[in-house]
Formats: sequence, C-alpha cells, structure tokens
Amino acid sequence: MAAKSVEMRETELKQMDLENLEGESKSNEGDEAFESVPGPPTNPMVSALLTDMYQISMAYAYWRAGKHKDRAVFDLLHRKNPFGGEYTVFAGLEECIRFAANFKFTDDDIEYLKDIMPPKCEDEFYTFLKSVDCSEVEIYAIPEGSVVFPRVPLIRVEGPLLIAQLLETTFLTLVNYASLVATNAARHRRVAGKDKTLLEFGLRRAQGPDGGISASKYCYLGGFDATSNVDAGRRFGIPVRGTHSHAFVSSFTSFDEITERSLEYAKGGSKCEDFVRLTQLWLSRMQESSRLREFFLETNHSELAAFTSYALAFPTAFQALVDTYDVIRSGVPNFCAVALALHDLGYKALGIRLDSGDLSYFSIETRRIFRIIEEEFNVSGFGKLVIVASSDINEGTLDALNKQTHEIDAFGIGTHLVTCFSQPALGCVYKLVEIRGQPRMKLSEDLTKVTIPCKKQPFRLYGKEGVALVDLLIGESEPNPKPGERILCRHPFSESKRAYVVPTRVEPLYKCYWNGLRGKRERLPSLVELRKRCSQQLDAMRTDHMRSLNPTPYKVSVSVKLYDFIHFLWLNEAPVGELQ
Amino acid sequence: MAAKSVEMRETELKQMDLENLEGESKSNEGDEAFESVPGPPTNPMVSALLTDMYQISMAYAYWRAGKHKDRAVFDLLHRKNPFGGEYTVFAGLEECIRFAANFKFTDDDIEYLKDIMPPKCEDEFYTFLKSVDCSEVEIYAIPEGSVVFPRVPLIRVEGPLLIAQLLETTFLTLVNYASLVATNAARHRRVAGKDKTLLEFGLRRAQGPDGGISASKYCYLGGFDATSNVDAGRRFGIPVRGTHSHAFVSSFTSFDEITERSLEYAKGGSKCEDFVRLTQLWLSRMQESSRLREFFLETNHSELAAFTSYALAFPTAFQALVDTYDVIRSGVPNFCAVALALHDLGYKALGIRLDSGDLSYFSIETRRIFRIIEEEFNVSGFGKLVIVASSDINEGTLDALNKQTHEIDAFGIGTHLVTCFSQPALGCVYKLVEIRGQPRMKLSEDLTKVTIPCKKQPFRLYGKEGVALVDLLIGESEPNPKPGERILCRHPFSESKRAYVVPTRVEPLYKCYWNGLRGKRERLPSLVELRKRCSQQLDAMRTDHMRSLNPTPYKVSVSVKLYDFIHFLWLNEAPVGELQ
Repeated sequence: MAAKSVEMRETELKQMDLENLEGESKSNEGDEAFESVPGPPTNPMVSALLTDMYQISMAYAYWRAGKHKDRAVFDLLHRKNPFGGEYTVFAGLEECIRFAANFKFTDDDIEYLKDIMPPKCEDEFYTFLKSVDCSEVEIYAIPEGSVVFPRVPLIRVEGPLLIAQLLETTFLTLVNYASLVATNAARHRRVAGKDKTLLEFGLRRAQGPDGGISASKYCYLGGFDATSNVDAGRRFGIPVRGTHSHAFVSSFTSFDEITERSLEYAKGGSKCEDFVRLTQLWLSRMQESSRLREFFLETNHSELAAFTSYALAFPTAFQALVDTYDVIRSGVPNFCAVALALHDLGYKALGIRLDSGDLSYFSIETRRIFRIIEEEFNVSGFGKLVIVASSDINEGTLDALNKQTHEIDAFGIGTHLVTCFSQPALGCVYKLVEIRGQPRMKLSEDLTKVTIPCKKQPFRLYGKEGVALVDLLIGESEPNPKPGERILCRHPFSESKRAYVVPTRVEPLYKCYWNGLRGKRERLPSLVELRKRCSQQLDAMRTDHMRSLNPTPYKVSVSVKLYDFIHFLWLNEAPVGELQ
Repeated sequence: MAAKSVEMRETELKQMDLENLEGESKSNEGDEAFESVPGPPTNPMVSALLTDMYQISMAYAYWRAGKHKDRAVFDLLHRKNPFGGEYTVFAGLEECIRFAANFKFTDDDIEYLKDIMPPKCEDEFYTFLKSVDCSEVEIYAIPEGSVVFPRVPLIRVEGPLLIAQLLETTFLTLVNYASLVATNAARHRRVAGKDKTLLEFGLRRAQGPDGGISASKYCYLGGFDATSNVDAGRRFGIPVRGTHSHAFVSSFTSFDEITERSLEYAKGGSKCEDFVRLTQLWLSRMQESSRLREFFLETNHSELAAFTSYALAFPTAFQALVDTYDVIRSGVPNFCAVALALHDLGYKALGIRLDSGDLSYFSIETRRIFRIIEEEFNVSGFGKLVIVASSDINEGTLDALNKQTHEIDAFGIGTHLVTCFSQPALGCVYKLVEIRGQPRMKLSEDLTKVTIPCKKQPFRLYGKEGVALVDLLIGESEPNPKPGERILCRHPFSESKRAYVVPTRVEPLYKCYWNGLRGKRERLPSLVELRKRCSQQLDAMRTDHMRSLNPTPYKVSVSVKLYDFIHFLWLNEAPVGELQ
C-alpha cells in the first residue's frame, strides 16, 4: 500500500484490479460475521437526536394514544431521478443499518427532550423512550450500489410504529445525499469514458466536513478512481492523490533557496551533485531548439525553482501545476526542463496539471510540446506524459471537451461533483404504507406525490439479452413472478398504460439487512464490492435510459391486483366533492 | 427553557428578546476566559487529516527544501458573492479557530501518512510533522456574522509556511458552506420580512448529517428563528420546532383507536370525559352553519381521529398538518373542530401547517374560514390562528407569495435553504500573499482570479448617515485612514476607476482571533451574539446593495500605494510575450 497516492502512475491506477483493493477497505471491519451487530455510523454526530422535532412529538402522541407498538410498514423512496436523468444510484444503506443497529437514546438525550417537551409529558413516556431500540424492526432493501428508479421503495422498514417512525429523518439524511452524489459520480464517469482517470477533489467546497467525507466515499462507489481527501483515504481505503498548489510555486522567489541540490540516480549508487544546474541546462537546450523556440523565450525563474525543488523531494512522482504564471510560455517548459533532468538520472516524470484557461487548447499544445521533446531529445514515452485537468469541470464541460477534442488523461473534479451543482438535493421521502395490516396511502393532487399503499415486493424483469425491461411491484401475498410467464405490468396511476412482459430472468430486489439479530441477514458489502456492483448494474442497463440528452424513462409498474387495490383505496380515502 | 419547541406560540417566538437566549447558547462553553484554548471543532471528524493530499506532499517538499519555517502570510477570500447578489455573510470563523487551536497529527495519522507517502521520505520529516501545531500562527479575521465583499480577505493566516499551508483545505471547508448558507438564510429573511417566523426544516435533504447540523447553526445566525433539528437545538441552544407528519395522520383509521378520551380543563380541576365526542359535535355544528357549509360536507374521519388524538397529547400546543387528504374539504374543518373543542376547555390551538398546493389560495381560504368561525361562534382570536407553510419554499416563491398576497405567518424552509439550491457552493480560496517579507501574487488571465499581494489591513469607510461607503485595503506599513481625511480609493485592477472619500467613521475590519496563546485575543462570541451582529450589519448596508434584483455592487478598493505596488509586481512576474 506504500506510496499509493503520489507515486502511483495514472496507468497503474487504471490497471489496478478492483478485487485487489478489497482487502484494504476499512469501512466494514467487524461485519464479516453477519450475525454480529454492525458498528456505529461513520459520523459520530449521527445519533438518535439527529432528527426532526416532529418525530419526538409524534412519538409522544403515539405513546399517549397507545399506538406506539402497532406494527407499521414505511417505504423510503424517491419520486424523481436527479440531474434530468432517468436513473439513480442507490447509496447510504450501510450507514442506515449502522444507525438502526445502534439506535438508542442516551440519558443526556432524554434530559434534553424533557427540556423541550411540554412539562406535562409523563415520566413513563421517557422511561419507555429510553428502552426503545431496533430489536423488533426489520429492514428490507435493494442492495446498495444498485441502479434504481422512482416509486420502487429503496428501503422498507417494518416494526413498532414509534420506532419505525423515529428512523425517518436520519435515514433520509443518510440516503438522500449519498445517492445523489453517487449518481452524479456515475454520470461523470459515463461522459468521461472508462479509459480516463477520475479524481474527486471536492473537500474544500463540500457542504461541511461530512459532505466532503461522504462525497469521497460515494464518488468512489459511483466510479471515481481516487480522492484528494486524506481522511476519506484512511477511513475507506480509497486511493489518495495530490501534488502541489499555486502557493507552493509562489513560495519560491529564486534558485538560492534550494540549498540541498544533489539527487541520487534512480538506480541508486551515484549522485548528480547539482540537479538545479541540470534543470537550467535543459531549459537552455530547449530554448535553443528551433522547434521549441516558438513556444517560449524566458520562463518564470521562481517557478522553475519551485518545480526543481518539488522534483528533489519527489523524484519518482514529479507532477507539476503549470498555470501559476503562464501555461505555455512558462509552466510547461519549466516542467519539461525538470522532467528531462530527472530522465537523465533514470527517473520518469508523471506529468502536469492544468487548473485554468482553455483546457482543450492547453492540453493539445502541451501534448504537441511533449511529442516534440520525445523526438527532438529521443526520450521514449515523453509524448505520453499524463495531463490532468482540474478547472471547474462538470458533466457538461466533459461533454464539450470530448466534442472539441483534447489530450487530457485525468480529470480532477471538485465543486460541481460534490455539491451536485446542477441539482443539489434528492427528494427521497418516507411514507407509511401499512399499519396493523391495514394498507395506507397519502393522496395528493400531484400524482408523483401519491404513495403506493401496502407492504410490497419489488422485482426486476429481464429480457432476452439480459437487459432490464421493467421493475414490478406486487403485494406481499401475491405469488412471485416467474421467468417465462406472461405478466401484465400496469402503470400505477394510468388506466391505459400497461404491457405484457415475458421475462427471461426475474430478480427479487429486496434483501433483509436487519432483523434485530433474529436469524441470518445479508452481509454489508465492502466499499469496493459496492463500487463493482454499481459498475455492473450500469452496464446492464439499456443505453437509451442512461444517455444525458433526452433519455428514455425506465418503466416501473404494479401487478393487476395491486393496481386494482390502489384505486379502490383511493376512492375510499378521498372526500367527495360537490358541484355547485 | 421547558417546552420551547412545541408549546411556544409563533407570536411568543417573535417577541423573544435575543439577549435572553444568550445564556442558553451552548456553543461557547469554556470560551469565557479568552486566554484559554478554545474547545475542539463541533464535528469530531474535523481533524488534521481532513485535508487534501497535496497539503501533505507540499509539507514534505517544504521540509525537504528547508523552507518549512519561512514566515508566510495567506489570505482566505471569496471572489464573487453568491446567489447573484452583492453581499455575503461571513460565517465559520469560530470552527476555524477551534480547529487551529487544537491542530495536531496523532500517531495514527502519522502511520497512515507513512503508508501513502513515498517510502524514501525521511523519519525526521514525520518526527517534525508530529511536533507541528499552531503555537506560532497568528489569525486575523473580520468578525463572524459580518457582511463581507469579494477581494477583502475574510481571514489572514500568518505563520511558518508548512503549518499555515496545512490549514488551507480545512479552513475552506469550514468557511465556504457556513458563509454560503448564512447568506442564503439572510436573503430568505430579507424577502420574507422581519415580521414572519422562519423555521429551518432542512435536515433530511441536507448534504450529509453535518450539512444538516451546520445548516441549522448558520441559518439561525443568518436570521432564522428556529430549527426542526433536535440535535442542533441541543448543541447550539437554537429553539426547536415541529408537530407531526402525514404518517401520523395516515396511522389512524378510526375513532375506536382512541381509548383514553378524557381531557382536563386548561385551568385544571374538572375533566371533559369524552373529548372525541366534543370534536365530533363541533364538526356537526360547523356543517350546519350556512356560512361554513360552502366549504365542506364530509371530512375524512381518520384524519379527525388523528387530530383529536394529537390534541389529547398536546392540548396546549395543537398544530395540525392539514393536507393529507384535502386541505379545504377535510384538513382545515377537522382542525377547526378540534380547535373549537379545545377552546371549550380553555385551551388555545396554535394553528395549521400547509405542505402542498397553492399556498396563497389555501392560506387565504383558511384565514377566511378562521374569521368566519371567530364571528359565527364568537371565539376571540380564532381569526388570527397561525398558518405555517412548508412546501418547497425558496427566495423566489417567498417573493411570488408576497406579490400574490397570502395569509401565511410562518415559513418552514428546507431543501432550497440548506442545500443552497440556486448556488450550492461558495468559492473561497486561500492564497499566499507574502513569504519571508516578500509579497507574492498569483497571476491569471481572468482578473477575478488575480490575488492582491502583500500583508494587508482592511477598513470599512462610513459616510454621513452611518452607511458603509467602501472597503479599503492598505499595506501593513501604511498609516491607517482617518475620519475626515480625503482618501483616494482605487479599484485594484482598473486604472480609471477611483474615487475620493471623506469618511465620517473608519472601522478597522480585522481582529486577532488566535496568536498561539501569546497574549490577549478576541473572544469567540456566542451564536446569539453572531446572529445579532449579522442582523445589525445587514441593517447598516444601503438597500440598493441588498436587493434581489439588479443590486448595486459595493465597492472594494485599495490605497494608491498598494495599487502601484500590485502593478509593479505584476509586470515583474509575468513573462514577456513576443509578437511573431
């Protein structure tokens, strides 16, 4: 694992087998024996009090009404895919399970609640609240890292009304941003292409420290290769990357600052006594070359001093940020001088990072200079040095760069990725669908806000080429759909929209992730496994659902029986109007 | 402090003296003696490793070059105000100071860094890193809660290069989102008006748990009155609010579920034996009224059961969510029936919450019904019951509601507020401006990205009516501007833009918030004090800078001496081109 961040070359990173990383993931320690209790949530601030006040008010009202132990079923679902797309990557489940498994009010929590609740609330209520945990709760969910669609509940929580209700806000907080940013990462990966290296650089612009840490985790899940965030690297075993900033370059004013000028040859043994002199010599040689003279005359000397000093510190991992003064006139030639000097000593430089300006133009010009140097000075591989770009990149600019053509190998993406700039929130909701065996639904004039009642089972039906055709929700008591069977799939709210499907494969979407330690449950996979699942799931979707421009909506349907029941209940619950 | 959340009436909340809350703020415990070390950051995940990898790479390169103790000055500044506005509320300083005061790499941190750094890095480097802290760092800043403008550095960090550099990412993470969401809250307050109650409801949609907790803190700073977030209430002493959700309403199916039906009179002593019957009676009386009959016939009975049960639990704080089935035909009449029954027993209901549909129409219709009931049944104050709205509200919808007219008293704002939907990131940067007494600047073809070099002092110059006229940056060695003096203020990058100002008052903007415990420094104010400062600062600005539509930019200028120096250095650093 040594030197993963700064010494690992782009190409090595791409070639790394995901499987090999598995052993390094630190997010699942102790979960191997899945009968044991999962550890606490990553963020220690996630506690039973991290919830909306109304959950506490309702808890008291349920308790007062004697309804707190009524068996309830809640669905956690989203109503719309983010970013104008037609898919969502589901993430955050592991954190929800960790939260539920460790759910408990502390004495301090109870004391605070006594402060803010009406003084007449009975002591017995607080005694009861202190005893509440998730031992009688069951949690079924679609596996984390799956591609999911609106209306199919991602998580189904069953349990005593009071505790199942109390999980709402925290579950939403843990799923909404995780799924949003994982989806955003997957979308960036899709546009960038599988051969590019994608680096998440968002910590400084994230919505708070946890936004940064979660972003690193879920961007990796969604298909990014590495992060700049050191803490996320340690917590989750994500590869960490980063070289230097503009400040490093500006901090140098002259060569006199470099006191230790010697550098050992890559193979060891002998030493170059004045590496500084060597970089200066290479700069002169380039300035004398007729093919390179067109690009620059004088470069900024303090920049060359900074690059030289950085190379002395990291001879095996020299990568330079080239836009502090002027990319083509100063940064790139200074980088090349140092890279050529390193080459003389048997080292290979990594490449450059562009952080401003016309990335298409600068990358093409830089590549041209690299190739000229490869030919002119006969330095094998110099033309292929890595060009990283990291200037305000998003899905749209990636697409535009692809169209303009460019020579960028790796993208460092920050603000737009982690804050999900084009849509910074996912609107997952948590709705009661059954109580004491009675189906419940929330009505709304807005059809997307009407919830599908009943305890349900979701399935994904696959067609001939192994492509996902449709998701189907059925009532708990209905028989599972079978491959080869002709199944009528109905739109939940439209009378005319329906289709027969004969699936070649039927995948039940739910697994049991929590049952209060009463028997076996699904193991929580490692982050690397989640990342792999996400990638496989994205590959299994029809491309027209996945494209950025005018994607085809993926169909979500209900069984005939469930359809009929929804509409029966609807008429039953809605007040009848009167024409006047 | 008892019963602050559910029992406090809207009007009481508005009348609360901010000063009175001061004692309750829990964010500053232990800071009273400002010579002592501030406590750690709120989020325990904020550590020395919560940083970008390049900070660590640079730390090593600085150390290798022997530059790590060079005295450096960094400016933390923003280049553009968010949300298309012309002002920003500065927040996050307290967390930065807590971070700096406790900055330290642990043994575990160092072990992890050894893993990811090149194997050749010397042990002496890690030994040095282990010894690093902020004892030689000085931090000057504009007070938190101030109204601030691009280019005027919010924080100036001076200290040994290595440590001052290491603070960059974490400082940016702590300031960017805090200032963004505080500004967003201030903008919502401005549009809503000072007489409305503003409730932050964003936890479930926030970008991670910390996004939620920070949002609650900084929305309160920016002018909100309360939060739904219980944990934020406990941590920061913010008033907490919340009643019930749709699930509570749906969880009831009939009156039979209410087993305990008696309710004591407000004054105590006697009891109403069947409160359920009383609410049903009031529903019938309303249905018989000729003026109310137009609104509804039958209401949803399970909703009435839910409201009745909630009132039994919270007779002194009855507030109902009225849109589970149908606002005007069911929710509002059911609420009124319960509220009138409560009134019979000497209680006063709080009001209703609308969570969907046409808020202007529903609030006006609801108010009309409330007023009819006040007259029809002679219930004093019923017409003024509180109407809360909480459906996808943002600055734009607040403005639209004002124009359409409405009868809403309080707004619960979530997604758009906490995720800063219209611009989810603030782009603060952290730039080296001086090293070993030498001024440094970063050049860019984009003028907004050019940094102003030198260690500087910022001042705010006020005009005759106490209004802020212009911010002025001067070099450290220049004499301070004085009231009554004629001062030439120059635009930092435009030759022609300049103006003479004769200030009536000159405010130095920086205070010293950290000096490694070497003498006195500024106390960290309580959250309530920050909230008050913010409100006062907003009031002191000219309204044309603050308006939403086409606001006038506030001017930020430099002294003549600094102007000349910037342009001298610029020519010195930029490479000279050649026309070909």
